[in-house]
Amino acid sequence: MTRTSLSDVACSVARATDLFGDAWTALIMRDVLVGISRFDDIAHDLGISRKVLAARLARLVEEGVLVRERYQDQPPREDYHATEKGKELYPVLLALMSWGDKWYAGPAGPPLRVHHDTCGRTTTPVMTCEHCGEPVTIDNTSPRPGPGGAVGPGTMVIGQLVPTHSE
Amino acid sequence: MTRTSLSDVACSVARATDLFGDAWTALIMRDVLVGISRFDDIAHDLGISRKVLAARLARLVEEGVLVRERYQDQPPREDYHATEKGKELYPVLLALMSWGDKWYAGPAGPPLRVHHDTCGRTTTPVMTCEHCGEPVTIDNTSPRPGPGGAVGPGTMVIGQLVPTHSE
Repeated sequence: MTRTSLSDVACSVARATDLFGDAWTALIMRDVLVGISRFDDIAHDLGISRKVLAARLARLVEEGVLVRERYQDQPPREDYHATEKGKELYPVLLALMSWGDKWYAGPAGPPLRVHHDTCGRTTTPVMTCEHCGEPVTIDNTSPRPGPGGAVGPGTMVIGQLVPTHSE
Repeated sequence: MTRTSLSDVACSVARATDLFGDAWTALIMRDVLVGISRFDDIAHDLGISRKVLAARLARLVEEGVLVRERYQDQPPREDYHATEKGKELYPVLLALMSWGDKWYAGPAGPPLRVHHDTCGRTTTPVMTCEHCGEPVTIDNTSPRPGPGGAVGPGTMVIGQLVPTHSE
């Protein structure tokens, strides 16, 4: 199974990681969402080769996560902006950041803080239940079958493990 | 800059993706957290080569995300369980899953649902502010410098963009 075929697995984690399971892609999205939008700036920020960056950006545009826009004609220059689909990757970045802050920041502390403009406070975002607002963890949740579930490559065992009864 | 040196970037997203920015690693963690713990079962579930799986599992054990435990002596067999550090990757998986559900599930619908045992309802987890409980989005938050921030490879531009004033 190649990376590409992950998009065929009946699992939304697999489908998401087909695009996002790549360190450079995560860091490119971090940069664009924070406002670093020009090719040269992203390349400089990440210390990434122009060839690798061009390939990753092309894929992100193709997937509708970024759009490329001309900001200068002479000479032609373009920059990148997140679509709605791209902006909605922000929680993935926040989840990675929180985990990295907790387990890798060390004595120096977190490199970055998140300010919640709506309430005016610095926050550590938490993944919560849409109904009761309490944190969701692996220990207080359980998987249930969804309508799009299937047993197949990438879900050969997990597709059978998930209880088949509906609630 | 190689993948390995991402762990040296003053950015928790980079540090997290140094390990987790890999599609197989995400899917292995999905499996272990759902309860697929034996090498053969994970290999069968994912359709992954034993060599690739062994390398990924070894890295996850080395990073303290999984522990390997002997469950049978004759012949020797071992399985894998998530540590606290591993369990705390669950929000990353949930964020990837929510995004994949929204943008890739299509007419078939989500393959899997999350049941919040605490409140007894099927939920779509939301990333919220720890203070006010409202959803955090890229549009209602802004980055602030943290104590561990630095300008360097991987943060050459972003390290200067983030406002340097404390609140």
